[in-house]
Amino acid sequence: MPIINTRWNNGNSDGDRLVVDIFPLSSYYFSSKAAAASKDETLADRALRLKSNYDAYGMRTCVEAVILVELFKHPHLLLLQSKNCIYKLPGGRLRPGESDINGLKRKLLSKLCADDDNYRTHWEVSECIGMWWKSDFETLPYPYLPSSGRTPKECTKLYLVKLPSNRDFIVPKNFKLLAVPMCQLHENRKTFGSIIAGIPQLLSRFSINMVRT
Amino acid sequence: MPIINTRWNNGNSDGDRLVVDIFPLSSYYFSSKAAAASKDETLADRALRLKSNYDAYGMRTCVEAVILVELFKHPHLLLLQSKNCIYKLPGGRLRPGESDINGLKRKLLSKLCADDDNYRTHWEVSECIGMWWKSDFETLPYPYLPSSGRTPKECTKLYLVKLPSNRDFIVPKNFKLLAVPMCQLHENRKTFGSIIAGIPQLLSRFSINMVRT
Repeated sequence: MPIINTRWNNGNSDGDRLVVDIFPLSSYYFSSKAAAASKDETLADRALRLKSNYDAYGMRTCVEAVILVELFKHPHLLLLQSKNCIYKLPGGRLRPGESDINGLKRKLLSKLCADDDNYRTHWEVSECIGMWWKSDFETLPYPYLPSSGRTPKECTKLYLVKLPSNRDFIVPKNFKLLAVPMCQLHENRKTFGSIIAGIPQLLSRFSINMVRT
Repeated sequence: MPIINTRWNNGNSDGDRLVVDIFPLSSYYFSSKAAAASKDETLADRALRLKSNYDAYGMRTCVEAVILVELFKHPHLLLLQSKNCIYKLPGGRLRPGESDINGLKRKLLSKLCADDDNYRTHWEVSECIGMWWKSDFETLPYPYLPSSGRTPKECTKLYLVKLPSNRDFIVPKNFKLLAVPMCQLHENRKTFGSIIAGIPQLLSRFSINMVRT
């Protein structure tokens, strides 16, 4: 697999930049499965549910996957789209006591694999690249702890997940899986929200190798 | 030095988060020295100078320091302010062939230390936390390479620089050294520009320990 396009390297002391191999979108196979059950509820019901969960289990922790593919020689991020205008990273809430890595693997199986996968698909969860906190259930997330010193109500952790050179993606029918270019995400909070719009920055310290398969 | 305030840790598998100790602003001593020579020039002259340097030496590389202190139990970033409304990270352009680390140490000495320091002050330059590229001399920076595949004209690398528990800062009279809270920087591109406004996100994966001295 020859490397056809490497991030510019000035030959100085940045040889220790972490390398992420990404593969063409065409290396992957996409199909769909039965729609995922959605929590049909009003915003008020959701706030009640979050509050009751907080009282029972403490801070809600979400783990989300940053997964890259190559298209037109530019890195693209995989996003789930629902209801035409809501974009989400694949991932979700940890169960009480569940580790970040195990919880993220469970969520990736339910959102991106066949229902009878039974953990046959291996997900390579790499490092945490960013974290966001909410100081209350219905507020915006911030990339730092509330300065009041209060315990945050929710924490979202972004993990880099590395794909192999081929993979099947089986996505619930009520979602579309999209590959969105970095240049469309960057600072586009209006469309994608702060967390997703900031991902190009979080990835900038990595050296992205676009591999031809 | 007891730790008085630690980033919230949910006891899950995030024990490997990198810890950054920061010390109160009051641990540091600030004074000034003679004004630094400034390159008085028009924008057109500057563009000519950058172009001629590019032709001679290739891509311009800048290295900049992300230095944190604690104030009111919230992390603050050290910024140099000039002409009342221009904010810069301490740092500057590498000389041809100079390594990132050596170049950044040279710049920190010239901008934050006494003129007769003679490299007595030790700067602990830690990892690169983000990079930005300009595809041309007068364009905005982006946290990814130009998708055209063209060689970028300028690269800015942000390095985390860790302070010891005390330090003198001697700043040229034409600059003010400010400590600006994360919450004021976050997404505040209008005041600080994209690079500085994104620093809270780049730091979010670190566990910040506010140490009482």
